[in-house]
Amino acid sequence: MIASSSPRDVTAPTEAEQPEANLTRRLAAHLAALRFADMPERAVHEARRGVLDWVGCALAGSRHRTIDVLMQTLGRLGSSPRATVLGRSTRLGTLEAAIANGQMGHVLDYDDTHLSGTTVIHTSSPVLAALFALAETEAASGEDLLLAYATGFEAGVRVGRTAPEHLEGGWHLTGTLGSISAAAAAAKLLRLDALQFTHALAIAATQAAGMQQNRGTMCKSFHAGKAASNGILAALLARDGFDSSLEIVEGPLGFCRIYSRVSAPERLVEGLGESWEILRNGHKPYACGVVLHPTIDAVIALRPRIGRPESVSHVEVRAHRHVTTVTGTRDPATGLAAKFSVYHSVAVALADGAAGAAQYTDARAADPRLAPIRGRVSVTVDESLRKDQAHVRISSDEGCQEIFIDHASGTAENPMTDSALEAKFHANADPAVGPERAAALRDLVWRLESLARAGELPALGG
Amino acid sequence: MIASSSPRDVTAPTEAEQPEANLTRRLAAHLAALRFADMPERAVHEARRGVLDWVGCALAGSRHRTIDVLMQTLGRLGSSPRATVLGRSTRLGTLEAAIANGQMGHVLDYDDTHLSGTTVIHTSSPVLAALFALAETEAASGEDLLLAYATGFEAGVRVGRTAPEHLEGGWHLTGTLGSISAAAAAAKLLRLDALQFTHALAIAATQAAGMQQNRGTMCKSFHAGKAASNGILAALLARDGFDSSLEIVEGPLGFCRIYSRVSAPERLVEGLGESWEILRNGHKPYACGVVLHPTIDAVIALRPRIGRPESVSHVEVRAHRHVTTVTGTRDPATGLAAKFSVYHSVAVALADGAAGAAQYTDARAADPRLAPIRGRVSVTVDESLRKDQAHVRISSDEGCQEIFIDHASGTAENPMTDSALEAKFHANADPAVGPERAAALRDLVWRLESLARAGELPALGG
Repeated sequence: MIASSSPRDVTAPTEAEQPEANLTRRLAAHLAALRFADMPERAVHEARRGVLDWVGCALAGSRHRTIDVLMQTLGRLGSSPRATVLGRSTRLGTLEAAIANGQMGHVLDYDDTHLSGTTVIHTSSPVLAALFALAETEAASGEDLLLAYATGFEAGVRVGRTAPEHLEGGWHLTGTLGSISAAAAAAKLLRLDALQFTHALAIAATQAAGMQQNRGTMCKSFHAGKAASNGILAALLARDGFDSSLEIVEGPLGFCRIYSRVSAPERLVEGLGESWEILRNGHKPYACGVVLHPTIDAVIALRPRIGRPESVSHVEVRAHRHVTTVTGTRDPATGLAAKFSVYHSVAVALADGAAGAAQYTDARAADPRLAPIRGRVSVTVDESLRKDQAHVRISSDEGCQEIFIDHASGTAENPMTDSALEAKFHANADPAVGPERAAALRDLVWRLESLARAGELPALGG
Repeated sequence: MIASSSPRDVTAPTEAEQPEANLTRRLAAHLAALRFADMPERAVHEARRGVLDWVGCALAGSRHRTIDVLMQTLGRLGSSPRATVLGRSTRLGTLEAAIANGQMGHVLDYDDTHLSGTTVIHTSSPVLAALFALAETEAASGEDLLLAYATGFEAGVRVGRTAPEHLEGGWHLTGTLGSISAAAAAAKLLRLDALQFTHALAIAATQAAGMQQNRGTMCKSFHAGKAASNGILAALLARDGFDSSLEIVEGPLGFCRIYSRVSAPERLVEGLGESWEILRNGHKPYACGVVLHPTIDAVIALRPRIGRPESVSHVEVRAHRHVTTVTGTRDPATGLAAKFSVYHSVAVALADGAAGAAQYTDARAADPRLAPIRGRVSVTVDESLRKDQAHVRISSDEGCQEIFIDHASGTAENPMTDSALEAKFHANADPAVGPERAAALRDLVWRLESLARAGELPALGG
């Protein structure tokens, strides 16, 4: 047993001693040793921004019919009120509340996105749903919550890097890596030592699931809720003494091998402690698949120059491969499916000049005015483009207009401002809890590190 | 929406019409239409035998320290008493009880095994844990429970066949296929229609997890408990209207593709309705990895001919590849790890003439008398042998003795008799609930189909 949580514990050799050994234990030891004082102010601020955006998304999502169905089922499971369900004026057991909050955070596909070369993760829905479900019963401060939140990013993104073909393999990373992120966050909130932390990561990985095959259905956001509850269970079990493999990532049948055809275990600890992954988090201005965002940026930018949408004869999109593989649905049958349709997204951006929650309802998916516009959109894959880039050319009565977007708005390179985030928050939260409570929530989030009890935040969001 | 549960529903084409289409929906329609009257008496009896054996294993497992840790954690989650936890004189919420019962059923690695060319599944722990957790709150008869139990086998084994490299890929099928089996069983108990059943399978698949990397730790049996709770959640959500992909097995990113390097989607419906997979279920005479059983049979058979164990100079095992890849641990540190050690298993079979729960405790793993015997065992892989075959040759003061086992005891081809199963049940159950209650449980199981309320059974097992 490792009694200390120090990363220099003798049972977890340093990289210099044995470069290929004990990768999971090294990561766990590093995460277990992190302190709030280690976080640079920029990372703390990104954490505050992430909490604000996510609470807004969850409150807006709490009204979705998917959540009505979910709450009906969760209500049958026999849970006693222990953790607040956001925006629903009710409390459930810890696991059930985590499922509900995680799913409502992701159901609109409006929540934050951590984008890298190999991973696309909506980290906050699993992580904050797990932390909120624990915050009311565990003694945790606002600082604890912010540090635990940032810790969730470190674990999920790093494990993702060890499995470079994980995304291409058909997994929904918000479910799989989300379970690991949520476990790491919960483990941090519970102050697990290095060995317990190692177990928590393994207990989470052994529950990690979520299939892209279910994209565009109620299951997609369910992955986020399940990841939150998986993470909680992993961390609580580890604290109570549950054991596991000590090499769940790099082992012969470890995560990097069975969830990906190509594995890169050494990347788990690459540059450990040199940066904070939360600094690469992005926030969505549009309520749909993130790979559509540069295209929507382009259409909205060109819109003032092209007159009436009806006069558009052709929209030519050149973009990343995922725009066709992930968002290639031509005629989506539901609002959830529309979030993965480049055709629908271009049509609403042209028609409304917007792509918010209101543009992705079942009613708008069936809107007869959008169908002809969708039919005039064509998409070409350009292998040289990143996921946050797109080129759009619009032919209309006003002639030809074109634009290239280099970094979609809301990405780490082209971030939403704090005031834009606040505006998004209020647009999401005000209809759910009223402008006064929304303002109180907003103010609480901006001074989150001053809270003695982090549980105040979910309680206010109920 | 499919309103009828008939397998001939127009939205689910028959095989003749379109051989490659709607495979998941065809399976779901078939399972939704099954009735107790369709079950041949042999299948009903196998179901009774399965319930009896599993209840015994769960009761014996309820005393394991793994379950003590688990119960401590589950008790923190805020659940109201809704479903009985076997052998622990307590009740928990539906999900929590399913996790507890599923894990205790599998923790001793003593529960039943469905063995085929591509799959090895301990079906009862996920399936019966799910059914028991629902039986006390849902209106279900003994017949309903037996049919739902058999339905769980059909779903899990068939999905497993579509993913022929699923096992080799490092997955623990009791977790992955177990989630699908548990969902199908729960869906049957809840009388879902064909479309709801399709959703239930997909909601389960999208939660399916369990890594062999965790073999020999507390996580392995946790997979069974999580599978049970995943399956319940899937079926209840589907009943309430939750939706999903309609081609979760065969879709472009379907189960057979992302959980296996090789896929065979058409096998999902091969010979549908012609046989019952529960007839291929086996029951373990030994409390360890099933691939060790023919070797243990051999050692126990030779034992009377070889005198004192100390006189043995060499035990040569020739067996299936998995004996080295799955059970190759030379010096296991814990009882759980010893269950995957051919060396430990040969040693206890020689020393005790037995390989029951008592031979796989932490104390026996550390027993200094066993270490020298383990050191005299060598294993050779024979690619011509099946998992239920082994050849063992023992050299001792008495000379050389050898034997070939063609079908391990407890397999479908060499089944335990009803009276042997009863004896195993009492050895497991009597110490947990006393011989009187064990006898009452046994009698209830043998007349299970006569129960108006299946919930009587778990209630009596508390």
